[in-house]
Amino acid sequence: MVVYLVGAGPGDPELITLKAIKILKKANTIIYDRLANEKILEHAPESVKLIYVGKKAGEHYKNQDEINHIIINEAKNKSNEIIVRLKGGDPFVFGRGGEEVLALIKENIPFEIIPGVTSAIGVPTAVGLPVSHRAVATSFTIVTGHEDPTKDKKQVKWDYTADTIIVLMGIGKIKDNTQELMKYRNPKTPACIIENGTLPNEKIIFGTLEDIANKNINTPAILIVGQVIDVFKEIRKSKKNF
Amino acid sequence: MVVYLVGAGPGDPELITLKAIKILKKANTIIYDRLANEKILEHAPESVKLIYVGKKAGEHYKNQDEINHIIINEAKNKSNEIIVRLKGGDPFVFGRGGEEVLALIKENIPFEIIPGVTSAIGVPTAVGLPVSHRAVATSFTIVTGHEDPTKDKKQVKWDYTADTIIVLMGIGKIKDNTQELMKYRNPKTPACIIENGTLPNEKIIFGTLEDIANKNINTPAILIVGQVIDVFKEIRKSKKNF
Repeated sequence: MVVYLVGAGPGDPELITLKAIKILKKANTIIYDRLANEKILEHAPESVKLIYVGKKAGEHYKNQDEINHIIINEAKNKSNEIIVRLKGGDPFVFGRGGEEVLALIKENIPFEIIPGVTSAIGVPTAVGLPVSHRAVATSFTIVTGHEDPTKDKKQVKWDYTADTIIVLMGIGKIKDNTQELMKYRNPKTPACIIENGTLPNEKIIFGTLEDIANKNINTPAILIVGQVIDVFKEIRKSKKNF
Repeated sequence: MVVYLVGAGPGDPELITLKAIKILKKANTIIYDRLANEKILEHAPESVKLIYVGKKAGEHYKNQDEINHIIINEAKNKSNEIIVRLKGGDPFVFGRGGEEVLALIKENIPFEIIPGVTSAIGVPTAVGLPVSHRAVATSFTIVTGHEDPTKDKKQVKWDYTADTIIVLMGIGKIKDNTQELMKYRNPKTPACIIENGTLPNEKIIFGTLEDIANKNINTPAILIVGQVIDVFKEIRKSKKNF
């Protein structure tokens, strides 16, 4: 028996890896998130047991301890050989995958991890936004916009010096986060939101660090800040001519 | 006719996306890099034209202008419908993909971009190293260790404040880069090198910011710096018991 933590990619069900599909085809149980595209589940055998642990309107949201408990329970069920914990993006990019692995270790449960395309990079790349670009951006920082709420707020500084900043899960706190970024960066720095990246209802919103928070934004969405947005605008403009 | 910039993933030929494979199966020409696993080429039709533009010992290394010229030439060949520019990792993570796209735009050549798993994240994830981990790392910076040599050295500062630092293509300059990082970070900060990540000859080397550059390191390899290395050590130690 093995528990596989599998990255589902950024949204488009074809942006999952061959390796992930190989495992899904053999899965006895799949425990999946809101951010993992449900179309991916079609690769699993008909007999698979599906357990949804994401948020749903009006329903109780499962916390991390409950999710760990569900995974461990399935692992201890002797009729299970392959258990898949399917997570949006990459399992170790703000997915609390490390905590799930540590919980498995405590119970002596074998595991493997299959990387996925993180939305932090896959979403901008797919639309033609280069997160790095020679002469403009030779470094980029990926940060969660939704910090551990138990953390001392004064400890959380947004003084990131990398050329490009990419914020995941930050729309709920976008006002605070952009205010914080403006302490260290010009308010006129170009910014961009990509909603529902790589999905049919994808939407791109342009602005600057000082005005992007005032736009009408739906989740899931990522925020990208930096001069690379200008390169993206150039690419996007030309693409329309084809 | 369309030119597809396609991410080949971090090394393991199964860590490529379904979307990439779909395009490769229809390719007339594939222009590929040293970092793209050659096994991936087996998905292409037998009639495909393969053009290698990576470095080979004793041979002339094709520069970016020459590569752009090759892509454009293939695009202008009327018998080509699908041209694939296959790049290691993700096309826009230090792959100069943005420059290739701008060169295509200049010639009015239609293009699409297919994201890939970047080695910066996929390699640590696959071995069980969480680049982010609640309470330890809520941000990470990915930086090229091989800056544009025409750039003023004084402008290049390694004062990255993110919790985890991941350096790609930095082994040739690892002494300089770790020296630079130590101006802002404790020399005892845990560091780790992963050579040939996700491949059968993968190798992991542990150290600290002050001693990792003295180790015997082969390329391609990535450098990871930060407290997440301690979480990784815990995970790795337990994994050996299974």
